[in-house]
Formats: sequence, C-alpha cells, structure tokens
Amino acid sequence: MSIEPKGFQFAVAAAGFKRPDRNDLGLVLSLGPASAAGVFTTNRFQAAPVLVCKELLGARPLARALVVNSGQANACTGEEGLANCRATLEMVAKAVGIGAGDVLPTSTGVIGAQLKMDKWAAAAPQLAASLGTATAMDVAKAMMTTDTFPKLVAKTLSLPAGEVRVLGMCKGAGMISPTMATMLGFILCDADVDPADWQAILRHAADRSFNALTVDGDTSTNDTVLGLANGASRVAVRDAKGLKALRECVTELCQELSYRIVQDAEGGTKVAHITVAGAKSAAQAEMAARAIGTSPLVKTALFGCDPNWGRIVAALGRSGADFDPDAVELRIGGILVFEKGQPAPVDLDALLAPIMRHQDVEISLDLKAGRGRFTLLASDLTKRYIEINADYRT
Amino acid sequence: MSIEPKGFQFAVAAAGFKRPDRNDLGLVLSLGPASAAGVFTTNRFQAAPVLVCKELLGARPLARALVVNSGQANACTGEEGLANCRATLEMVAKAVGIGAGDVLPTSTGVIGAQLKMDKWAAAAPQLAASLGTATAMDVAKAMMTTDTFPKLVAKTLSLPAGEVRVLGMCKGAGMISPTMATMLGFILCDADVDPADWQAILRHAADRSFNALTVDGDTSTNDTVLGLANGASRVAVRDAKGLKALRECVTELCQELSYRIVQDAEGGTKVAHITVAGAKSAAQAEMAARAIGTSPLVKTALFGCDPNWGRIVAALGRSGADFDPDAVELRIGGILVFEKGQPAPVDLDALLAPIMRHQDVEISLDLKAGRGRFTLLASDLTKRYIEINADYRT
Repeated sequence: MSIEPKGFQFAVAAAGFKRPDRNDLGLVLSLGPASAAGVFTTNRFQAAPVLVCKELLGARPLARALVVNSGQANACTGEEGLANCRATLEMVAKAVGIGAGDVLPTSTGVIGAQLKMDKWAAAAPQLAASLGTATAMDVAKAMMTTDTFPKLVAKTLSLPAGEVRVLGMCKGAGMISPTMATMLGFILCDADVDPADWQAILRHAADRSFNALTVDGDTSTNDTVLGLANGASRVAVRDAKGLKALRECVTELCQELSYRIVQDAEGGTKVAHITVAGAKSAAQAEMAARAIGTSPLVKTALFGCDPNWGRIVAALGRSGADFDPDAVELRIGGILVFEKGQPAPVDLDALLAPIMRHQDVEISLDLKAGRGRFTLLASDLTKRYIEINADYRT
Repeated sequence: MSIEPKGFQFAVAAAGFKRPDRNDLGLVLSLGPASAAGVFTTNRFQAAPVLVCKELLGARPLARALVVNSGQANACTGEEGLANCRATLEMVAKAVGIGAGDVLPTSTGVIGAQLKMDKWAAAAPQLAASLGTATAMDVAKAMMTTDTFPKLVAKTLSLPAGEVRVLGMCKGAGMISPTMATMLGFILCDADVDPADWQAILRHAADRSFNALTVDGDTSTNDTVLGLANGASRVAVRDAKGLKALRECVTELCQELSYRIVQDAEGGTKVAHITVAGAKSAAQAEMAARAIGTSPLVKTALFGCDPNWGRIVAALGRSGADFDPDAVELRIGGILVFEKGQPAPVDLDALLAPIMRHQDVEISLDLKAGRGRFTLLASDLTKRYIEINADYRT
C-alpha cells in the first residue's frame, strides 16, 4: 500500500487465544534492522512483555519485529509469564527467520491468565504464510480487544533529502475494560534515524498524545508504545531541522491516534479538549488538566451537555496547582464563563447550549501564574460506561 | 435531650432560600464562650463563609455560635458575597443577643449565586423564637441539601473528673450534586478544653474521618467542620491521658458521621473500607488508598459485586506509592486474593461472591514496605450516580 513506510511487512494469524474466528496474533517485520524505541506504562505492576521489552531495548536499541497478541495480557503471571513471553519470541523469530533478540513483544487481554502456549505453538508458524500479503490494517485489527474500530493513521513528511513515511496503529484506552489491559501503539517509520534521536522523538510524541489522554484515569499494567525507524527510505534525518520536523510529524500522528482512542472510549459520547495555560509550570498545568479531566462530576456534566463551570472550577481548585483564584479565566467553546472569582454575567446556558451538543468540547483555562501549558483529551462518563464495567451477576 | 452536650441551644427558621416549607437556616448557640476550632476545604476557590470563618478563628479561637444556611453556598460570589456573609452574622448575632464576631458562618447550596439578603433579614429574627425548643436534630435537618437522611451522632466519655458529651452533625459528601457545595460538620462538646488542644483534636479527628472518605474524589469550595467546646460540663480536660481519650472519642464520632456520608452517597450502594498498610509512609498509604477509592473501574466493579482484584492492583500500581510489586498482599473481605505478583490459586469468584453482596466491603492491602497506614471509605459508582449528575436537557 502506498501509504505504508518502505521496508516493512505485516503478518497475522488466528490462534484462538480468546475468541475463535478472528486474527489475534500480529507481526510487523522490518526487512532490515531498525532503530527501536519504547514508551511504557509507569504502573508498578508491569506485565511480562513490558519487562522483556525494556530488557531488550536496554541491551540494544535495535529490533527487526514487533509482535502483538490479544486475549491474554500476560500480566500478573510471575516467573512462568516471563518464561512464556521469551518462549513466544523464539517461536515468532523462528517462523520468520530472524533472531529472538530482535523481536519486541506486546500483549493485551485478560490480566492474571497465563499465555496459551499450545495455541502459540500452533499459530506462530502460520505468521510466515501471510507475510507480504497481510496489511498494516490487518495487524491493527488483530490487536483490538474492546475497540469498536481499528485505529490507524499514516503521514508523509517531505524533507530536502526526500520523502519519509510514518504509520501508526493503536488500540484501547486507559483501562477501560474489566480486565483488558490496555493501550498499545506501534509507530513505524522509514527514515534513517539514530536510536537515541528516535527514542527522544517517540518520548516527545507520547507525552503529548498517549500520555495526554484519559478515559478513566487509569494506567494499566501493559500500556506500551513501540517505534521502529528502519531507514528504508534512504533519507537520513540527522540535522536539527529535520529531526524537529520528524518529531512534529510523529507527534501529530500520535495525537490523531490518541483522539481516536478517546472517541472510542467505552460508552463515551464526548471528547473534551482540556487546555490549561498560564500555569506556574508544565507539571502544574498537567495536574490541573488531569484533575478536571478525571473528575466524575465534570465528566457526567459533559455527558449531560451541561456547561457546568462550577464543577470545572472546583476540580481546578483541588488539583494542587498554585494560582490566584481571582485571576483565573475559564472558557468553554471559546466563550468566557468565569473570571475574577465569579461566573461571567451572561446567560451561559443559552450561549453554551449549542456548543455543548457537539462531540468535541473545548475547555480552556488561563491561570495567569506563569507559562506552563498542557492539553489533555478526556472522555465523558456515561451510563453505558457503568453498564460495561459493572459486572452484573444475577 | 439527655444526649446533647450541656450548655448548647438550637434554633431553626424557614427562610425559603431555595425551597419553601422547610427549615433552611440553623443555629447552634453556646450559653457561654467556647473554644472554637475549624477544619476547612483545601480547594483554592474558597467560599465567602470559609474565608470569614478563617479570619474570625485566626483572630480569636473562641466563639458562641455556629450558623448554617442551605440553598446558596455563597461561593464564587466575590466581594459582594463576603460583605453579605458579614452582614448575615450581624443579623444572627442581633437576633440572639451576642456579638457578630462570636458567630461562625457556614453555607451549602448553589455555587455562584448571591445570598438572598431579603430572606435573611426576614428569617434571622425568627431564630430567637425557637431557641431552647429546637433540637440538634432540627439543625441537622436544616443543613441538608441532597442528603436522604439527617446525620447525627452523640457520644459520652467518662473521665475521672466526670462525664463529657460530644455531639456531631453533618451533611453531604464530596461534591456530589451539580452545584451543591458540599460537606459541613458541627462538633459540639461540653468539655473544658483549651483552644489549641481542641483544634488539635478536631484536626486529628477530621484527618481520619471527613478527610478520609471519597464519593467522587472532589473537594468543594465550602467543605467545613467546626467544633465548639464550651466547658459546660465543668470537666476540665488538660492532662495528656484525658486529651487522648477525648481525641479518640471525637475521632470515633467523626468516623461514624463519615460512614453515614458515604452510605448516603448519591446513587451509592456500597461502602468500601480501603485499608493500605505497610506503606513507606502514611502519605504513601493515603496516595494508594485514594488511587483505589477514586478509580472508576474499582468503583463500578464494586457496584457490580465483582471481586475484581486486577483493577485494584492496577490502581495501586499507578498511585505513585513505592513498593515491591512481588511483595504486595491484597485481601478482600479478609480473603487473600493476590500475592507474589499473581492472583491466589483459589476459586476467587466462588469464595468472594457472598462477601461482595454486602453493603460493606473490606479491601486491605499490605505493601510490606514500611509502617505507613491509611484507611479510606469510598462509595461505588453506579448508574443512578450518572443519572443524578448528568443534567439532561431535552
């Protein structure tokens, strides 16, 4: 496909890890060694694939392949889980003729259950069969668990030395399902980038995208974003200007993927774009944005299309950010609703009703305390979310 | 009433601040000066009554009366709100024949709306009429907004020097209503206690009760606990042993009140008792407990009577507390469900089903990293909560 970065192949298999009749094993193979980077969950309980990835990348920031399975997250699985993870890498590597140390693992699915090694043994060899015919979209579908649509974005970047392509795929959000862990992303690029630069680019992009969204405020045991930059375009990106352009391109791509994650949030009907500016620091801006974006009261108000400035203000007030309460300005959909410690003297309900009906709602705060800034995407909190996540037992 | 501490009188009036035909103005009057203490919201947006209380207590930790109105919270009301608050204290003081500087104000109700000064002027004088006939329960009812039952607890403490009585009343929880701000508590005691000791007792009690509960994780603009200790029992409490006993008595009383708040949480069906022990510090234990108690995934699982250890573990893992993931032990209802980084090899669903059906569910974690400990009460997250808090506009 013309949008796919050069030098990557895709493969899928239907192992039957959880459900029959669907692809639940996916592989991305770079035809040559690629700079490899990763951004991982900060949860103290780290799934086996996360631990193994970190180990592999720590030893050598290069890889040939990314593998993903859905069905079992291989989290909270102890020593057996780690051993199984390594064994699956041997199987996959053997199937496509590369070294086991060149494969980075990811898993998503039920926490606490061991991998089904018999099914892995049967399915891994099948990967070779679809290599070259399967598409990036096939892999994006294989990684899905509770997603209602596959998430894939591609971009082209024109540099003086030539064209570079980036493709990203992801699944999930926060920890949105009973035991489904959780958010995975693969970022593929055909630029020739040094590993350290590529890691910095992925980190920068993730901090402004995957790490700047919230569905239910949770970070799972498995959240992982892996990036491969394989140089197959023959365009070397070493200079500051080129790296900056690539960084912006990857960041935008990750932000588009993140937007899709929040759109697909379980039971969600809204995407709130919460921007906090004028904070004493970027960290305080983030604290403030997260307090607002995770507040059940703010999120239920969003669901109800209620421009409830009081809940936003109260959430900001308890966020820990430092500011003068009389200086804060709050805008919803660009309309000033709160300043000088009081609501704006206008008919807010009338002005804001049409704004609140949209899927996308902009909530902007200026704390007038500095230059710190952060933007967070957040979903609303709905009855459907409760239905999905409360496990009714009759 | 024999349970009421000596030397206190109560008064109520129906001002019609929001709804007609209900008492919405309440007064507690000490027949003599009382040591006065307060614990207030840490929200950066502080309602006018909170600012005025702090000012009065800062000048002098003594008072004669506590006044509460429901209907308007007098929050986010600017200079006009502050002036109105002071004016209401003049009105109330005049009605019962004391100095305005001896009255501490509290308000609960809609944020952003000014006090209805005409109704205050009409109702304040009426307080004198019920003084001496109104009861503590009448005042507990006058402060209610979305509470479904009044919350009042009384205790007696026998000390060598004689008997001391403590009575507490409170309303609300977190920030549970669209614009209803929020949690108020009055603690009345007839012991003779120095102001500094009394403030320390109230602080200790609040930190283990009102500040150790969560409904939706929010702290409002108005949360306030005020305490009066008037010495009318003629029992002086100065020695370490007596102060400790009084502190424990007040703490237990506040914990019983807090339990009622969580029981009455909007749409709530459960009270989770989340205890984190073995943390590196008390602060880390608290961080861990709050991450668990505010997690929408943990709370919806509670609603569904689902013993979902994975969500509890994931919430602990992102709390920021520092511990060895392989050392943590998690018990639900006293049954060990997770240790050594993996679920316990037992039929958890069968064992825990009867436990999860109770209103009260105990979730206990031992982090094995130190001696820090914290217990938090939390409600579940239900469809009814969403219905109440999403303001449907058709």
